[in-house]
Amino acid sequence: MTTVEQPPIGFGRMHRKEDARFVRGRGTYVDDVVLPGMLYGAVLRSPFAHARIVSIDTAAAQAHPRVKAVITGQTLEGLKLAWMPTLSQDTQAVLATDKVRFQGQEVAFVVAEDRYAARDALELIDVEYEPLPAVVDARRALDPDAPVIRDDKEGQADNHIFDWGAGDEAATDAVFASAEVVVAQDVLYPRVHPAPLETCGAVADFDAVTGKLTIWCNTQAPHAHRTVYALVAGLPEHKIRVISPDVGGGFGNKVPIYPGYVCAIVGSIVTGKPVKWMEDRSENLMSTGFARDYHMRGEVAATRDGRIRALRVKVVADHGAFNGTAQPTKFPAGFFHVFTGSYDVEAAYCGVTGVYTNKAPGGVAYACSFRITEAAYLIERMIDVLAYDLDMDPAQLRMKNLLKPEQFPYPSPTGWEYDSGDYPRALSLALEMAGYEELRAEQAARRASGSDGPLMGIGISFFTEAVGAGPRKHMDILGLGMADGAELRVHPTGKAVLRISVQSQGQGHETTYAQIVAEELGIPPDDVDVVHGDTDQTPFGLGTYGSRSTPVSGAATAVVARKVRERARQVASAMLEVDPGDLEWEKGRWYVRGDQGQGRTIQEIALAAHSSLELPDGVEGHLDATTVYNPPNLTFPFGAYICVVDVDPGTGQVKVRRFVAVDDCGVRINPMIVEGQVHGGLADGIGMALMELIAFDEDGNCLGASFMDYLLPTSMECPSWELGETVTPSPHHPIGAKGVGESATVGSPAAVVNAVMDALKPYGVRHADMPLTPAHVWRAIQGRPLRTDLAIT
Amino acid sequence: MTTVEQPPIGFGRMHRKEDARFVRGRGTYVDDVVLPGMLYGAVLRSPFAHARIVSIDTAAAQAHPRVKAVITGQTLEGLKLAWMPTLSQDTQAVLATDKVRFQGQEVAFVVAEDRYAARDALELIDVEYEPLPAVVDARRALDPDAPVIRDDKEGQADNHIFDWGAGDEAATDAVFASAEVVVAQDVLYPRVHPAPLETCGAVADFDAVTGKLTIWCNTQAPHAHRTVYALVAGLPEHKIRVISPDVGGGFGNKVPIYPGYVCAIVGSIVTGKPVKWMEDRSENLMSTGFARDYHMRGEVAATRDGRIRALRVKVVADHGAFNGTAQPTKFPAGFFHVFTGSYDVEAAYCGVTGVYTNKAPGGVAYACSFRITEAAYLIERMIDVLAYDLDMDPAQLRMKNLLKPEQFPYPSPTGWEYDSGDYPRALSLALEMAGYEELRAEQAARRASGSDGPLMGIGISFFTEAVGAGPRKHMDILGLGMADGAELRVHPTGKAVLRISVQSQGQGHETTYAQIVAEELGIPPDDVDVVHGDTDQTPFGLGTYGSRSTPVSGAATAVVARKVRERARQVASAMLEVDPGDLEWEKGRWYVRGDQGQGRTIQEIALAAHSSLELPDGVEGHLDATTVYNPPNLTFPFGAYICVVDVDPGTGQVKVRRFVAVDDCGVRINPMIVEGQVHGGLADGIGMALMELIAFDEDGNCLGASFMDYLLPTSMECPSWELGETVTPSPHHPIGAKGVGESATVGSPAAVVNAVMDALKPYGVRHADMPLTPAHVWRAIQGRPLRTDLAIT
Repeated sequence: MTTVEQPPIGFGRMHRKEDARFVRGRGTYVDDVVLPGMLYGAVLRSPFAHARIVSIDTAAAQAHPRVKAVITGQTLEGLKLAWMPTLSQDTQAVLATDKVRFQGQEVAFVVAEDRYAARDALELIDVEYEPLPAVVDARRALDPDAPVIRDDKEGQADNHIFDWGAGDEAATDAVFASAEVVVAQDVLYPRVHPAPLETCGAVADFDAVTGKLTIWCNTQAPHAHRTVYALVAGLPEHKIRVISPDVGGGFGNKVPIYPGYVCAIVGSIVTGKPVKWMEDRSENLMSTGFARDYHMRGEVAATRDGRIRALRVKVVADHGAFNGTAQPTKFPAGFFHVFTGSYDVEAAYCGVTGVYTNKAPGGVAYACSFRITEAAYLIERMIDVLAYDLDMDPAQLRMKNLLKPEQFPYPSPTGWEYDSGDYPRALSLALEMAGYEELRAEQAARRASGSDGPLMGIGISFFTEAVGAGPRKHMDILGLGMADGAELRVHPTGKAVLRISVQSQGQGHETTYAQIVAEELGIPPDDVDVVHGDTDQTPFGLGTYGSRSTPVSGAATAVVARKVRERARQVASAMLEVDPGDLEWEKGRWYVRGDQGQGRTIQEIALAAHSSLELPDGVEGHLDATTVYNPPNLTFPFGAYICVVDVDPGTGQVKVRRFVAVDDCGVRINPMIVEGQVHGGLADGIGMALMELIAFDEDGNCLGASFMDYLLPTSMECPSWELGETVTPSPHHPIGAKGVGESATVGSPAAVVNAVMDALKPYGVRHADMPLTPAHVWRAIQGRPLRTDLAIT
Repeated sequence: MTTVEQPPIGFGRMHRKEDARFVRGRGTYVDDVVLPGMLYGAVLRSPFAHARIVSIDTAAAQAHPRVKAVITGQTLEGLKLAWMPTLSQDTQAVLATDKVRFQGQEVAFVVAEDRYAARDALELIDVEYEPLPAVVDARRALDPDAPVIRDDKEGQADNHIFDWGAGDEAATDAVFASAEVVVAQDVLYPRVHPAPLETCGAVADFDAVTGKLTIWCNTQAPHAHRTVYALVAGLPEHKIRVISPDVGGGFGNKVPIYPGYVCAIVGSIVTGKPVKWMEDRSENLMSTGFARDYHMRGEVAATRDGRIRALRVKVVADHGAFNGTAQPTKFPAGFFHVFTGSYDVEAAYCGVTGVYTNKAPGGVAYACSFRITEAAYLIERMIDVLAYDLDMDPAQLRMKNLLKPEQFPYPSPTGWEYDSGDYPRALSLALEMAGYEELRAEQAARRASGSDGPLMGIGISFFTEAVGAGPRKHMDILGLGMADGAELRVHPTGKAVLRISVQSQGQGHETTYAQIVAEELGIPPDDVDVVHGDTDQTPFGLGTYGSRSTPVSGAATAVVARKVRERARQVASAMLEVDPGDLEWEKGRWYVRGDQGQGRTIQEIALAAHSSLELPDGVEGHLDATTVYNPPNLTFPFGAYICVVDVDPGTGQVKVRRFVAVDDCGVRINPMIVEGQVHGGLADGIGMALMELIAFDEDGNCLGASFMDYLLPTSMECPSWELGETVTPSPHHPIGAKGVGESATVGSPAAVVNAVMDALKPYGVRHADMPLTPAHVWRAIQGRPLRTDLAIT
């Protein structure tokens, strides 16, 4: 699977073009940006989860000889920048003025000559706090006597943010009322952190002479950031340049505008110098975008022989102190898109209640495409709970209920249309690759042996995602529609430069997109450079998250390359003196129909376009093109995963023995990059299932603010992945591709948890929440499972 | 004339946007570029005009402790880079291998840690030369026994480069044979230097990891440079980024690719570090592109009453040792476009012979649009010679022969079509502004007085230019057609960024082009940023020279803005739910025909385009557009100039008392910028007419390699200009503009020389060549004029 052939002209395995600089240490990350006269900023953060600010004394910090500026909420109030809009119809404090609302919240910003002085000066700021009771459990936040966290918001008398529902509640209730079998289960998806390798940071450089603000920051959505800065700060949009250089991982953590960015900008404006701000690990883990934190109750109505009839879901969603990203403002969240998973149900209903708590803002799109991860986990857990209650084989139960190929395009109970799929084929392939029958036989033999050795568990999950936000008519961020631009410029020698609105945080855009152009124009991928991550150089678009790069921007790239090809046809027609309609395309070349020898390569055509060749009226002398792609629908990748675990009954330690992953993301542009994405996501799933948890104590103190406390999987915890694929092209995508960036993260946690539950079945364990740490598993075996949402035993 | 109103929405006077940074010293010129680890290069130049290279010993230089590399022609031969193509179908030595062919020719390149070490090390290089006889006079270069300069070229047995002819020779000869009056005059346009304030230089930075070459160089044609580097050096075109940052004047001097650029590139490749090379003044004056050096013989056939019937011209053009830029390869040079000037003649013929001499390569487009300056000077000198011989008033003689408005579009004897003009009106206005009758009366009175005070002279010139190269079907550079691209991106808030292929060397593109977009879209010019001078950021085009920016790229800008406007109409139609055809445009706004209140501003439309507004099929959600403009014809600006001089008969000192300049460049986008261009060009004319000369001794030693020897006019030598205008829009240009960058330089020398000759008329002086230095004028009065082409008295 890892053979790399010569770079193909088009789709196929090739090494990533960007790796030449990465493996030589020649990448340029935000912290590599050093400008003449640059100053350094540091953020003073709240030690309390909830407290009133009585006073802030910055005199001693101001007096520090190497300090250039101390900025507080009061400074920002003067600039009308103390509060800023989030991307989800809420406001957020840049620097706290009235209260602090989570531990780690930004209170002041020091700008100094170097990092050390800035950090030292933080300790010279004297903030007097009046502590308030903290609300940490989302369910308790809805109690009538819970302290009101967002008393800054007019008319906000409680901690309730929204109630959203999707599906047909009455029809669902009716099915439940008549169901032979109803199973119910509370399922928690605990708060986790995307934890990218590189923390968040920015270098802001405001030039008072030209009025130009340049900000290097490792955002996943540079254009959206620019427009928001323009709308909020009143800076003209064309005078703002957001550069997202090489980025060391995003995973949703780098979508929001963090207060540090705004502080760096203000710091540059007030000092007249460039200002760098860079989080340390603890700041990143404590204060920036978390994910999940969903308290879910799932109910399944079924027939006694395992035919699923309806699904009813209730969710309490913990959004922390400010409602951050990834809550589309116009249409119910992605959770709704696929909460019925891959199954054919008569009716379904889901209600989600969003609440404020005294935690850092949650809701970042950590491989969740607006909560698809939570939905996929819930339904796959519920299937296994149903199998447990009915004592059915979970593979058979799934096969019985999966949507059939002939049902596509499939209208979901919440109004979406799954584009394409052959689900039974993917599951069959996974079962076959795993040797499912043999595994079950091995398990049965082991159980029968009465050994006190490891408990074997086999877990299955089958997931469907809905990725590629847009379509713009259904979604927006602050009114900006979900569409993405692409520009393709072809130089006289036929070398091409593609400019895209989306931006890589490690996904390999410079390779994948070059391959799309290569495929469409028939030129080597090395002849195509891809420019991204710089708003001055690229067309508008909403960024890379929710697996949307290939579904949206990849489509834009194919479309713009086809425009170039059509331009080339016009020029070739002038070169060959034949009607454009008489030309046929073969990879890299237009030729005269019926006379294949008579033709011109795209390189020859490019030079001719820029030469003194006379062209017909209306045909311009270039091949360049521009487009914006507004996807007509989401794309629906899917997959079947099988995980085999061994659980040590004495310690509760889980070892993932095997992991089979069959993914269908439609057409694969570079299978090696797809597999890399899958590898990473599978590791994510092991991490979330077995070890990752951002825990809080009852006062709202964050207990996971270092990698000593917040555990991530390493290669030691991962088996050698066994990957398979089916290919069901998306019918509405120009090259038939679907997104794959989040698939494995979405699909894998349930497989691991289901495997552990399967191992524990002989002990009567029906469900235990993630993360399945050794202590937790051991206690589940003992019949006393931990609560994992709080660090309370 | 100098009132500046508020920045207009569209055309009108406004301060230049770029000046905010220039007046604060915040421009970034090549020499301001400092990169980490940057090294410095210096060029060893030949002391001989013609010599064989026997040997080059670089050992001592190599041993210098701060020297990193010494590059010779031998080094380059290994890279196949010792010779490079010029832009005019010739080759040029990058570093001399066989012979040196002009004084100042590049022989070796030292790369060192700093400039001082690089310069010091030059003196450690030991070159053994075998001097050869030099050929300095172009006419002597054609002698059969003249030493052959270009013995490197196969089949080149003499110094002859080309013979070109234009017009109908037989018809012309026939008219001459039957003419009542024939006048003839040898006229020299001596070798001058554009002498921009900033000398040429480059910083080359080759990244071996990414294969990307970035070269900052102050070129006037970054895209052409990039393509040539790609074609010559075999570097992929998309891996070359040419950045022409702020540039301190070009005037044609910065069109060619100089050996220093190539050496800096090679230096960066061999050292792995960025390498800066920057000429000093002496290098710039001695070795880089010169202009003019035309030995011309003009003959006019006329009737006795001053009706011009035919023109016959023979030119020996001195191109120096390598045939450089500004010799279009496909069509006779610009000299031919307008060598009959602004006059209605029955027949005309011109023959040009190009020759090699042992001088630095000439032929740069120093305000000459491919030799228009020489042609305009010759015809205007010939008119005055005819007036002298016929004893007619030169104003009346011109008025009698000028083309009439009804003759436009006017097919010239060499096949071009003058686009539009009202010549008599422009001349009448100039005569009126000057108070011509009163001036003549004053002159007559002075002459009659017998005073030995200053001699008063009144000189007229009427010029027609042909500027704006393309059209691409008639011209190319190395096969690249003369067309220019423009891209216009409109941000969601309606702020716009225009990317243009041409590049400013001080012309004010950032203002003028913003005004064109402002005019077309009805938005403030401050809402439009203009990006230029960076091949990575801008569409392909052939650069700024030959007054072609506004005629070609300005047209592209208007066209692309109109495309944006049409896109906006589509979006507005969706917003207002009316048919696009029912919308009317008023500045900045589409409204419903018949209901002006129902409309949307361009800013509202831009936001809606990027919003979740649903758009009809085929309408993309953005307003961005791209174009390339291939001009259908040249534009033909013209003007009438009147110069009044006082000549001191005792010293020969000329004082320009008044200068009236009526220019017609069609529609004026920013009249203040137009006037600035005219001011500069008029000063040029005074310089060339009175003081500028690159002289050589008989051995080819350059005698003008410092500003002590090569004199330029200052404000002390210039009167307060009196400007007037007529406006005859170009019918084929989208906004009716013609080029104006070179007009005054083209038109003014003849006015000054004619004025001096007019002053000297009582002494029987019919013609003396430029520059009319005091010594020269004094000797002309004495009946012993100097030869000015050689520094030989």
